[in-house]
Amino acid sequence: VSGSDAGPALGPGPEFDLIRRILARAAAGEVEVGPGDDAAVLRGGIVVSVDMAVEDVHFRRSWLTPEEIGGRAAAAALSDLAAMAATPVGALLSLALPAGDVAAAAALADGARSVIEAAGAALLGGDVSGSPGPWILDVVAIGSTPRPALRRGARAGDELWVTGELGGTAAALYAWSRGIEPPPGARRRFASPRPRIREALWLADRGLVRAMIDVSDGVAGDAGHIAAASGARAILEVACLPVDADASATGDGVRLALSGGEDYELLFAAAAGLVEPERPAFEDRFGARLTRIGRITNGEGAWLQDEAGSLAPAPAGGFQHFRTEAR
Amino acid sequence: VSGSDAGPALGPGPEFDLIRRILARAAAGEVEVGPGDDAAVLRGGIVVSVDMAVEDVHFRRSWLTPEEIGGRAAAAALSDLAAMAATPVGALLSLALPAGDVAAAAALADGARSVIEAAGAALLGGDVSGSPGPWILDVVAIGSTPRPALRRGARAGDELWVTGELGGTAAALYAWSRGIEPPPGARRRFASPRPRIREALWLADRGLVRAMIDVSDGVAGDAGHIAAASGARAILEVACLPVDADASATGDGVRLALSGGEDYELLFAAAAGLVEPERPAFEDRFGARLTRIGRITNGEGAWLQDEAGSLAPAPAGGFQHFRTEAR
Repeated sequence: VSGSDAGPALGPGPEFDLIRRILARAAAGEVEVGPGDDAAVLRGGIVVSVDMAVEDVHFRRSWLTPEEIGGRAAAAALSDLAAMAATPVGALLSLALPAGDVAAAAALADGARSVIEAAGAALLGGDVSGSPGPWILDVVAIGSTPRPALRRGARAGDELWVTGELGGTAAALYAWSRGIEPPPGARRRFASPRPRIREALWLADRGLVRAMIDVSDGVAGDAGHIAAASGARAILEVACLPVDADASATGDGVRLALSGGEDYELLFAAAAGLVEPERPAFEDRFGARLTRIGRITNGEGAWLQDEAGSLAPAPAGGFQHFRTEAR
Repeated sequence: VSGSDAGPALGPGPEFDLIRRILARAAAGEVEVGPGDDAAVLRGGIVVSVDMAVEDVHFRRSWLTPEEIGGRAAAAALSDLAAMAATPVGALLSLALPAGDVAAAAALADGARSVIEAAGAALLGGDVSGSPGPWILDVVAIGSTPRPALRRGARAGDELWVTGELGGTAAALYAWSRGIEPPPGARRRFASPRPRIREALWLADRGLVRAMIDVSDGVAGDAGHIAAASGARAILEVACLPVDADASATGDGVRLALSGGEDYELLFAAAAGLVEPERPAFEDRFGARLTRIGRITNGEGAWLQDEAGSLAPAPAGGFQHFRTEAR
């Protein structure tokens, strides 16, 4: 794996344009995989990712306990390691809180730590400072892998697979945005996501993964990232999507599953026919579905295919802070 | 170096109590140096530090250009690597900005990148999200070192040395807090700190460093951290402090030098007599002073010694966000 050709190749959308612009001139040194993947990979297979969570952008305090807020921020960073098929080693936690909320810091850190430790890593350190208003958390996750799973590497003929179910976190946001309490399962999906660390290692160890990403921008947007990085087209077969039951119950399940962001499931491309024989063992071991949801072809972009077989461009990536969360 | 006995040993003050509480149960795994030092050290000598900068806590937009804000955040994280005598490898940048300020993101990133590249590292990636108000930057700096310089290791009889001059950034804050524009030199010290990366490697390569920290909480507070981590007493000889000229001009130079925080100079303990013979070469090479400012004795805490020889406890660590920046 060489980073020299790893210019940032991201799917469409204003947030990605911005990241692309920021990283355009970023260099590569002791670095195997630079900007544009789920995490940076350093020589020796050290993988580093960072994830910021800002109150009223990524969460609201009225929705979650401080422990859940801390755990969710940690899960987001660890999920980037899962996407690289890396084993978590440690994490650093930065907190910024208004002076009056200092008592919450220990609860935030406890929540983060328990998720970090459940992933087999250690909380290595951190930083606490003031904030003029919002709670801010930033988690750095550090892992290692001999062979990172990248976004690039998918080829025409590959199948696209996803772990678990999609749209559950979006169903929770859907309820909160209407002023109602989400169903318990949807709330749990949002409040306590579990990064798919062991699942990623299991899949990668069996040689099933050609390209992988975690579902953090909605599966349509994330399929677009794999397509862009791989120089190929991703086709999602809408009828195959494993839509979360609470998402379905809204009557808008497919849309929530496609663009609902932050499910922290794994989306990966595999050579045709390899995954299905392993599927029962995966589902048995992890108690989670493994579903073929599409394929890779020549071309570009992420596309949706309906049951009649007709194709349409997928909606641009899901959760775009600057568009949907502007205030 | 083993992390098993590396419980967080920090100097006094409410912010440190909080960090201590958060990290108290943090574990050590593949980790050589865990919580409580300037950065975490992983097996293989990979060093990781993180530094968050929040508008109206760490900086004001009316004081600095976006490029300076980005550069300063990067310098703070890189200075933690310098404190460990680590060679920078790469950095990750997270930004959170209100929707209307997106245009500033490229300037913030440009400022960070130029400081990162000047330190010999690469900008490896990053993340951009919305903010409900303040600008927020978080920089993760990654380095490597075969032999990290730690806060512990100072012994009775050692000398305490500091690079450069102290109080310049505090002099800038002193002016701004009175509504006047700082002198150019003081403003530059605040706006464009240069992490002492090469200086740290030079000192460590010559075996001059027994314990080291970067001056980010005021030299009195940081001497307290070395004392606490080393199980010893740090005595600062007030008459020896290299007080910045703009700090002196305020009439309150010693106080600004002692507790003014964020000078990003290096404070280190060295065996008696070793540094002085190397001082001219250091000053010639780096164009910066190298000054003996005190000593290590048996005991605990950081103490000030006046010219008459009498001792008093040093003021508790300098820049404490929750106390001085509460709003």
